[in-house]
Amino acid sequence: MQSNDRLAIVLVSGGLDSCVAAACAAQDYKLAFLHVNYGQRTAKKELEAFNDIADYYGVNYRLVCNLDYLKEIGGSSLVDQNLNIPNGISELHSILRTSIPSTYVPFRNAQFLSAAVAWAEVIDAEKIFIGVVAEDSAGYPDCKDEFYQIFNKLIAVGTKPDTHVEIIAPLISMKKSEIVKKGISINAPLYLTWSCYKNNDKACGICDSCLRRFRAFKEAGTRDPIEYEKHSG
Amino acid sequence: MQSNDRLAIVLVSGGLDSCVAAACAAQDYKLAFLHVNYGQRTAKKELEAFNDIADYYGVNYRLVCNLDYLKEIGGSSLVDQNLNIPNGISELHSILRTSIPSTYVPFRNAQFLSAAVAWAEVIDAEKIFIGVVAEDSAGYPDCKDEFYQIFNKLIAVGTKPDTHVEIIAPLISMKKSEIVKKGISINAPLYLTWSCYKNNDKACGICDSCLRRFRAFKEAGTRDPIEYEKHSG
Repeated sequence: MQSNDRLAIVLVSGGLDSCVAAACAAQDYKLAFLHVNYGQRTAKKELEAFNDIADYYGVNYRLVCNLDYLKEIGGSSLVDQNLNIPNGISELHSILRTSIPSTYVPFRNAQFLSAAVAWAEVIDAEKIFIGVVAEDSAGYPDCKDEFYQIFNKLIAVGTKPDTHVEIIAPLISMKKSEIVKKGISINAPLYLTWSCYKNNDKACGICDSCLRRFRAFKEAGTRDPIEYEKHSG
Repeated sequence: MQSNDRLAIVLVSGGLDSCVAAACAAQDYKLAFLHVNYGQRTAKKELEAFNDIADYYGVNYRLVCNLDYLKEIGGSSLVDQNLNIPNGISELHSILRTSIPSTYVPFRNAQFLSAAVAWAEVIDAEKIFIGVVAEDSAGYPDCKDEFYQIFNKLIAVGTKPDTHVEIIAPLISMKKSEIVKKGISINAPLYLTWSCYKNNDKACGICDSCLRRFRAFKEAGTRDPIEYEKHSG
């Protein structure tokens, strides 16, 4: 791992993508990890993964932001217990009805990035890495490249003149299988990550997130190092 | 008070400006009030004012967001107990040293607005009113008109296609005394507001925020309806 004194904040959910984004950042920067707890069903599993990945990279700067109000606002199956989490089949159906999956949390990435920018101003970080993937999250409006271009303009205008923070989305145009390959090539600890939408001991293997992940490893010609309750792929 | 079924969210800190912004919104919209608690010294006084103003307008939709991590991030005298709150004199000195007052909370308005946009998507609000004032908060980079223009682009790109939310900053180019006059002319309950940076029973009358407010009423040719511990103006 190469790094120097330049500091980058990485938004680390604990999932596969953010782990690979962290591995990308670790090549050129000293790391600061930010995790957001927003009342999502899998908060505990994600926080464990966040801390495991932070330990792996020896990260001292760790910030966990609680955005509990997102649960109060609702509107997403990830935080609203009254909405069903899609599995592969129901997700397909929901795509036929609308282009926005039920797992979409309104304006989520703007909230996460705003917190990261505030922290960056105080700890003097140069970059904010976020592991968003346009293809993977087709239909999530805040996962498009244009969103990040505009957000960088917002930072330039909305922070102190001597603050120079930029958002980097290194995976945004990658396929999921390419992310797996990239992660393996730069020693990202993929075995520490959690992607499943459910909150069980092992990943369920049937939710939409598990299916995408499982397929990605298969396409990458390798085996997912985590254990599943069952495989449907 | 005119209103119809179209809904607007108002960011209500409990201060003078946000109260007048609420009064502006009340002319054309049904109101939803959002308050942010971010570990600021005056959180309790501000929340009281928020609820008093909400009661005045009969607002049912009320959301209080806790952004406690802003205190953890620090970097502002409003949330960091180790930094002194400026009074008129020290503020003048600090302006000579730097254009950013010590009361600046990093990227604060972006965080507040992101929460408001998320809520707007769920409750189907059309507008988000924010009582920022460019002149009054000279040096706060997230109080400039350009910031809100870019934020509106971010909303257009980063929300669902059927979401049409727009930020309105009705006071942004007004002088503080014009805001007082405006508020009085549209029956804003200015007697319910709290502006002081300190956390006492009465407004201190000497902090920078009290001085600005006190001067504004004087310039507007009227008397501030709240009580002060002492007047230095």
